[in-house]
Amino acid sequence: MSTTTMLMLETYPKSINLDRAKLAAAIDTLNACAQACTACADACLSEDMVAELAKCVRTNLDCADICTTTSRVLSRHTGYDANLSRSLLEACATACRSCTDECARHADMHEHCRVCADACRACERACRDLLATMS
Amino acid sequence: MSTTTMLMLETYPKSINLDRAKLAAAIDTLNACAQACTACADACLSEDMVAELAKCVRTNLDCADICTTTSRVLSRHTGYDANLSRSLLEACATACRSCTDECARHADMHEHCRVCADACRACERACRDLLATMS
Amino acid sequence: MSTTTMLMLETYPKSINLDRAKLAAAIDTLNACAQACTACADACLSEDMVAELAKCVRTNLDCADICTTTSRVLSRHTGYDANLSRSLLEACATACRSCTDECARHADMHEHCRVCADACRACERACRDLLATMS
Amino acid sequence: MSTTTMLMLETYPKSINLDRAKLAAAIDTLNACAQACTACADACLSEDMVAELAKCVRTNLDCADICTTTSRVLSRHTGYDANLSRSLLEACATACRSCTDECARHADMHEHCRVCADACRACERACRDLLATMS
Repeated sequence: MSTTTMLMLETYPKSINLDRAKLAAAIDTLNACAQACTACADACLSEDMVAELAKCVRTNLDCADICTTTSRVLSRHTGYDANLSRSLLEACATACRSCTDECARHADMHEHCRVCADACRACERACRDLLATMS
Repeated sequence: MSTTTMLMLETYPKSINLDRAKLAAAIDTLNACAQACTACADACLSEDMVAELAKCVRTNLDCADICTTTSRVLSRHTGYDANLSRSLLEACATACRSCTDECARHADMHEHCRVCADACRACERACRDLLATMS
Repeated sequence: MSTTTMLMLETYPKSINLDRAKLAAAIDTLNACAQACTACADACLSEDMVAELAKCVRTNLDCADICTTTSRVLSRHTGYDANLSRSLLEACATACRSCTDECARHADMHEHCRVCADACRACERACRDLLATMS
Repeated sequence: MSTTTMLMLETYPKSINLDRAKLAAAIDTLNACAQACTACADACLSEDMVAELAKCVRTNLDCADICTTTSRVLSRHTGYDANLSRSLLEACATACRSCTDECARHADMHEHCRVCADACRACERACRDLLATMS
């Protein structure tokens, strides 16, 4: 886990409405998932059988975009809006679940899909863990 | 409204699950809203009374990120996932509503907040219009 | 052309170092190009011959990301940094040129590549026009 | 450092034109810098003296956007374009240098600016290290 995320949470000058350790874990897991999905989309593109991976590329691109945006929103604490964080975390968990399922279908044949499915599974869990502390 | 969006929808080689005119309107409105929010955050930063606009800047940044991501997801039709589109549109409508409300509070004093509130209001409506066609 | 971009430039409360009409044109062209590239990458993915379009998808994804980021940086005027704007505009023009060339290779066969090549060509020109006013 | 980045590079099915260890280091450093800059912009917004930090917020937002985009481009190897990678890495190094300088001006007073300046300094170095291997 990156320590930069935790250092930035520790140096935020006002109070934060969420548990800082859980928040840091969620942000780092979101960033790792975005990274894995961007790389997996590209790895799929370089496979000879890319035609069978078209849906996987698309799902990866969506998941990368949504995880990056969710990580950014969670990294902001000024004017915190629990309603928005919750709604976005729900969408992000949905994206991660779709990407886990799609990558898992190709995991036996493509190592990059196996690694990416693991990253997406961990990310869905991190989103749901954080959601559980918000209700 | 940009015609590029509609041209790209018209040249997509397979069928699209949503009404192309409504989809083009939603994508263009999302892009205009993202643009307005990015500019409004920056305009707030240049105001002498920026301390009173801190929450507005944050809400603008969230809304810009979420609108850009939603526009990207809606611009992809390969391997369409209605569940994900719906969930993300809900989060985006929530972000637009928050940003409309926050910008509207400063609209009398700051023209950029007035213009941005209009863009966010139109965007929430476009998201909800598209959602209405999906159920 | 979107009028939102121009309205936001007109309501920016301080002076802007660049010509507002040229700036609005560049921002709108960047946003249209990002939109076209995101859609073209997805359209390529849905083609039966996607294996021959893998490089085109990748070039589209890069161009979309770089145009979106360049549009955001140009939409900020507070603490303007001519050096950074110039450097990013150079990178963006390079991305647009690559994407124009790659899409043009498939324009006879795929209408989405033809439309996207036009958007990228216009965007390279807008970047270079703006660069010309900055030296 | 995240191991996901290295795992994804190791499972890419074709050859990669750059040294994988240096590339992984650059990508992880870019992601950490984007994270720090997003958080620092928000921390600045919550300071009572935010008016004096307006330029810092803006520089942080630019740097976050450019680092995220550069990380994405470097995570793609299909249809590699050395010219584009070089041009974008130059722009990114410029953004990191500006952000290092601006955050360093406030580092004595604000811990988040000190941490962020360190992340930006490391990121400029990683960009220049990678650039040095490309000529």
